[in-house]
Amino acid sequence: MAEELAPGPVVILDRPQMGENIGAAARAMWNFGLRRMRLIAPRDGWPNPKAVAMASGAGRLLEDAALFETAEAALGDLSTIYATTARPRGLTKRVLAPEAAMREARARMAEGERVGLLFGPERAGLETAEIVRASAIVTVPVNPDFPSLNLAQCVLLLAYEWRRQGEAVEPALAIPRGGRPAEHLEVARLLDHLVEKLDEARFFYPEAKRESMEVHLRNLFHRLELTEADIRTLHGVVRALGRGAG
Amino acid sequence: MAEELAPGPVVILDRPQMGENIGAAARAMWNFGLRRMRLIAPRDGWPNPKAVAMASGAGRLLEDAALFETAEAALGDLSTIYATTARPRGLTKRVLAPEAAMREARARMAEGERVGLLFGPERAGLETAEIVRASAIVTVPVNPDFPSLNLAQCVLLLAYEWRRQGEAVEPALAIPRGGRPAEHLEVARLLDHLVEKLDEARFFYPEAKRESMEVHLRNLFHRLELTEADIRTLHGVVRALGRGAG
Repeated sequence: MAEELAPGPVVILDRPQMGENIGAAARAMWNFGLRRMRLIAPRDGWPNPKAVAMASGAGRLLEDAALFETAEAALGDLSTIYATTARPRGLTKRVLAPEAAMREARARMAEGERVGLLFGPERAGLETAEIVRASAIVTVPVNPDFPSLNLAQCVLLLAYEWRRQGEAVEPALAIPRGGRPAEHLEVARLLDHLVEKLDEARFFYPEAKRESMEVHLRNLFHRLELTEADIRTLHGVVRALGRGAG
Repeated sequence: MAEELAPGPVVILDRPQMGENIGAAARAMWNFGLRRMRLIAPRDGWPNPKAVAMASGAGRLLEDAALFETAEAALGDLSTIYATTARPRGLTKRVLAPEAAMREARARMAEGERVGLLFGPERAGLETAEIVRASAIVTVPVNPDFPSLNLAQCVLLLAYEWRRQGEAVEPALAIPRGGRPAEHLEVARLLDHLVEKLDEARFFYPEAKRESMEVHLRNLFHRLELTEADIRTLHGVVRALGRGAG
């Protein structure tokens, strides 16, 4: 798969609306050498001739782009995900500027991790349910009086930061985790396991509070940067507790 | 004159062609707080309704923009000029990346100098006669296989660099937690609660592995940077799971 050999983080566009914007995002990526794109349920279907027309010289990124139905599938094999959004919306999650995020991303990729940059739909931006999946939030430090970046500009700035820092990676910045970092899908499955057991125990009560309780729990576990060993331990914990003192 | 009071370098567009691009450049400037624009002989005259339509929220920059007939007049009062161009064209002139250029620009403006960023026409870019006027060349480190930045993107990246270097605090250090951070003892008590329930469920087996399993669990939870709300949630989770599906 071409994607395996290419450098740089994966760019994931969540439910992009206009084909032109997908093409412009591809151009912005390729301007700074990023070439791995994933699409989650583009509004106007895929492939999209308007995206191809806009991408011009970066059309190969669109040909190679991987299409997914859900965020969970698109993010499944990634271990570090940066969600670009202006508003943290009360979630407990690290908020990084592009500079710090790309510095960390480089260090983690140097350790063999799979890193993704997640961008929301043009109008509404990422929803809480998607932000929750991220390891950290990236916020571009725009003028608070005029925070009007469009999708392709946001991709451009992240891609620029990635490349800018490319000349000298300080090994000291590598943040070793004890063991292989968990992939997104492994964390998602742990959460499914936990939620299932909590359902059996009627934890989500009253039902009206279920959604916010589940968001809180999922956000908590996705931000933990768990390792594969942690995942196994926590499955064991959930299983043991679910079994109870019997 | 408003320009005198505004922060940041002056952005000079040399013979811009499309009004839309002038408006997009104004937006890019204002996104990162630059607000002083000068125009040298725009192709379609000035003012230009298409520029105004594109600028939307950044329209005031166009109203305040100063119009000049020649580069010499537009650059006349500046002491440091950075010319953005991809190709140094054999001139003996310093070539800086945006990062180094904006660092130098900040230092010089702090000394009281007047600094300008000079951008050429969309198609052809700056001519040698204009590049010669500059103190240094700024070249954005684009992918050599796809050096396709447009005018507004180039302005955006320079403006971003300007603002990025002005952030007083490393944004990476801002880690807002949703609520009061948990105290160590609160985490320790949560762990005691968890270990108690796990003991009831005979999780720590065989006994010889108990110590390393418990160390792993405690290390995991102490590194999570939990909030007080997280602690309450997790107590609830442990309690619910411990109760089981009864």
